Amino acid sequence: LLLLSPSLECGAEMCKTAGSCQGCLHYVFDYETPKTLVIPNIRVGCVFRFTQLLVVLYVVGYVCVVQKAYQDTDSVISTVTTKVKGFAFTNTSDIGPHLWDVAEYVIPPQGDHSFFVLTNMVVTPEQTQSRCPELPNPSTTCVDDCDCIEGHSDPRGNGIQTGLCENYSTTVKTCEVLSWCPHEVDTKRALMSAAENFTVLIKNSITYPKFNVHRSVRNILPHINSSYLKMCEFNRTSDPDCPIFRLKHIVAEAGEDFQDMAVKGGILGILIDWSCDLDWWAKKCFPKYSFRRLDNKHPVNNVAPGYNFRFAKYYKKPDGEETRMLIKAFGIRFNVIVFGTVRPMRHHY
Amino acid sequence: LLLLSPSLECGAEMCKTAGSCQGCLHYVFDYETPKTLVIPNIRVGCVFRFTQLLVVLYVVGYVCVVQKAYQDTDSVISTVTTKVKGFAFTNTSDIGPHLWDVAEYVIPPQGDHSFFVLTNMVVTPEQTQSRCPELPNPSTTCVDDCDCIEGHSDPRGNGIQTGLCENYSTTVKTCEVLSWCPHEVDTKRALMSAAENFTVLIKNSITYPKFNVHRSVRNILPHINSSYLKMCEFNRTSDPDCPIFRLKHIVAEAGEDFQDMAVKGGILGILIDWSCDLDWWAKKCFPKYSFRRLDNKHPVNNVAPGYNFRFAKYYKKPDGEETRMLIKAFGIRFNVIVFGTVRPMRHHY
Amino acid sequence: LLLLSPSLECGAEMCKTAGSCQGCLHYVFDYETPKTLVIPNIRVGCVFRFTQLLVVLYVVGYVCVVQKAYQDTDSVISTVTTKVKGFAFTNTSDIGPHLWDVAEYVIPPQGDHSFFVLTNMVVTPEQTQSRCPELPNPSTTCVDDCDCIEGHSDPRGNGIQTGLCENYSTTVKTCEVLSWCPHEVDTKRALMSAAENFTVLIKNSITYPKFNVHRSVRNILPHINSSYLKMCEFNRTSDPDCPIFRLKHIVAEAGEDFQDMAVKGGILGILIDWSCDLDWWAKKCFPKYSFRRLDNKHPVNNVAPGYNFRFAKYYKKPDGEETRMLIKAFGIRFNVIVFGTVRPMRHHY
Repeated sequence: LLLLSPSLECGAEMCKTAGSCQGCLHYVFDYETPKTLVIPNIRVGCVFRFTQLLVVLYVVGYVCVVQKAYQDTDSVISTVTTKVKGFAFTNTSDIGPHLWDVAEYVIPPQGDHSFFVLTNMVVTPEQTQSRCPELPNPSTTCVDDCDCIEGHSDPRGNGIQTGLCENYSTTVKTCEVLSWCPHEVDTKRALMSAAENFTVLIKNSITYPKFNVHRSVRNILPHINSSYLKMCEFNRTSDPDCPIFRLKHIVAEAGEDFQDMAVKGGILGILIDWSCDLDWWAKKCFPKYSFRRLDNKHPVNNVAPGYNFRFAKYYKKPDGEETRMLIKAFGIRFNVIVFGTVRPMRHHY
Repeated sequence: LLLLSPSLECGAEMCKTAGSCQGCLHYVFDYETPKTLVIPNIRVGCVFRFTQLLVVLYVVGYVCVVQKAYQDTDSVISTVTTKVKGFAFTNTSDIGPHLWDVAEYVIPPQGDHSFFVLTNMVVTPEQTQSRCPELPNPSTTCVDDCDCIEGHSDPRGNGIQTGLCENYSTTVKTCEVLSWCPHEVDTKRALMSAAENFTVLIKNSITYPKFNVHRSVRNILPHINSSYLKMCEFNRTSDPDCPIFRLKHIVAEAGEDFQDMAVKGGILGILIDWSCDLDWWAKKCFPKYSFRRLDNKHPVNNVAPGYNFRFAKYYKKPDGEETRMLIKAFGIRFNVIVFGTVRPMRHHY
Repeated sequence: LLLLSPSLECGAEMCKTAGSCQGCLHYVFDYETPKTLVIPNIRVGCVFRFTQLLVVLYVVGYVCVVQKAYQDTDSVISTVTTKVKGFAFTNTSDIGPHLWDVAEYVIPPQGDHSFFVLTNMVVTPEQTQSRCPELPNPSTTCVDDCDCIEGHSDPRGNGIQTGLCENYSTTVKTCEVLSWCPHEVDTKRALMSAAENFTVLIKNSITYPKFNVHRSVRNILPHINSSYLKMCEFNRTSDPDCPIFRLKHIVAEAGEDFQDMAVKGGILGILIDWSCDLDWWAKKCFPKYSFRRLDNKHPVNNVAPGYNFRFAKYYKKPDGEETRMLIKAFGIRFNVIVFGTVRPMRHHY
């Protein structure tokens, strides 16, 4: 559009002065070209051509070969399955000796890209729906029933107040609440130290949505066979392609201490970076693993650290009354995060 | 490449006419430059330089300062944990008085970026694997056994037909099915109105995958301390940085009514938009919260509204028979969605 | 910047030779324009104008109309809910005749964008925490107690060794382990062939985060009414807009056989590609469905195929002892993956 304007304008001016339509058309179809001066100096000419060569080299060398701008990039569809293995034994007064296997300590059990491994817990067995005095703290202690409001529910408490003031112990009286009783008392914890030796097999397949390719690439590389997969363990130097990771190793690579992290819980990212080059002469596609703690450990203000949640197993007593075992679960949530812009050639498929 | 072509062509033509290789080389290394006309008019010159100045200002001012195109943008790795607090009490004929705490009404309990809060339910206690007549509707009513096909299973029914026609009531006969009996009858619902006062603490950390930065930024900003976090509640004007949200407030900000939404269920997005500027002179990074209903409430055709699913708690009777409590759960699924392209300076790390 | 340099350089040189500041300023404000040669040839002029026309047509036709580069693209916020329907009946010696409904075979039950349908399983009922001899294999068989190390735990075994060597059968002795006993023996599987006739309703709403649009678009298109939704089933030719999919059909479209896939399990992607054009004259937005198997079925090396995980249902015996039913679940995980860069006009909202 800009190219047109000068000559059109010029033509328009000429039309006005000439006042004839033929003169106007004449100028519209004139061809203008800049006059050039040819300097037949071989030195100047060489410098000129060399400059042109540099431009060509930049385009071919950097843009095409290094950046591969002729390739179309595409984000990937990734699918991840994980399978944890290992056993842990705890012996607490609450639940007695107990062996933990994968069906119990991995939550949820599906083996998705995000999985939680239980490492520490507060167990409150045999809770039933009933009434009991609140745990004593400034807002729950009372002298008589007048201090307790029927129907009041403190989000940081354990239930809904009945309006009565009951003896919590011989010395302290607290408001009675309707709740799952007895309440959780965070004194005895069952730490599963053995969790550091659990291993996890991560299966990751990637495929390309835009390009109608009906094959996918996976992190179990072609040279890995069943017998290797049965005994290998990821190690950046000796076994960089083994997709089985020892939890302690993952946490250590992220710069953390497993036993420290097991106590309060946390979130750990397993990053899989795919670098794929699908040019016909290259055809290589391999994953690179890295590990990083995703929640803050040492922020300037260490408020609300770690990761925990509560869940319960529900039972029924022979008389039909519902009872539950409440577990406050501390542990490490592992998030498998897959990156990778694949670059198939534009006209390859 | 375009620069080369005119002179090469020209040279080639000259070669043909001259027929000598020396003449050809001569033209290859000639330097061509356009003849220019210098107009020593200070007015025209000023206009010319001013135009050039505008171009320079655009590049420096808009592209560099406003758009910060020299910075490399990068999408973030985000990790979210959520923790709901609050109690609700229901009293229905099915399950009697019941206090609901977080371990019961948050599904799944892990506190992931997507969590569901139960607000309304149809409870069918004491189901067992047995045979019972179907709920009456046009496709299940029958006159005699000939109307029922053994092995037939209607996806909208409750089980697999046994081929018998049984009395559902004194007036209606329906096909008998092998199923979890008794069937769910959607008449009495237990609405948990108190759910609107539940609060949720959202912890969100972001980190940058591309840049090898081993620190993350989180939505619990440096100036938030433990005592503030114990009592604060998000409010766009008074407490815009508090990461604790009252469910009623979230739903109201999305332009919906909590009690309406609680009945049929729905999906609500909690959007966290990070605007980070990591230039050394700026170094600020803070989250902006917004809320939006993600499923359709008033579409042109209000087909299949709301959100619900069925789950069950399994028990065993003293005699070993399996029994379950089926719950059709209506509620609000909250999805925490994190945006943010961080712009660390290219050579900063 | 490039425009400035030649004349500045030229000016600088002139300044040096003239040695006067006035001469310098003189050259700074001179206006240079290339001399042009006007060729009043109508043929050459036509070719010249035609070339300009091609450039204009490319800009208007391709860049504006085809690529719509004037529109701003934006990725979408998508929310998905899924609801599976159907029944299956199994009859195995382990758990006897059993009818499976959606609350049992869909894991997790929430109906998220990723859901797992159980198709095959190994059930180990009545496991309790106790001691029993390991399943015999080269690493667990023993002659006497010396072959068993107390506290040793093989990740591929079933528990923690007690140090005793016990009779597994009359002919084989294996190390005793502390474990959930009896151990899972993978001999009898309960295949749910009827799962191929399950249907799934997928509800998908998309909305745009950047543009402050408070309406969302969903895959239940405006012309779909309740009665159609009750009876329709997706078919690429006859019912391309019906959001209800028969599992067998999905698997077949992905080029797989359901019964094959049901045995070992696998992962299947349901891809929803939204092509939206929000120009005021177009205003159309519709989803396109496609299906693809995401895990590798026939890789070069078929190591670790399929998809399975273990979960358990926990019970309590009348005497208070905890018992569980362990289920090794094989099945198909369906991942609903939503694409779509919506293009609202830049100043439309």
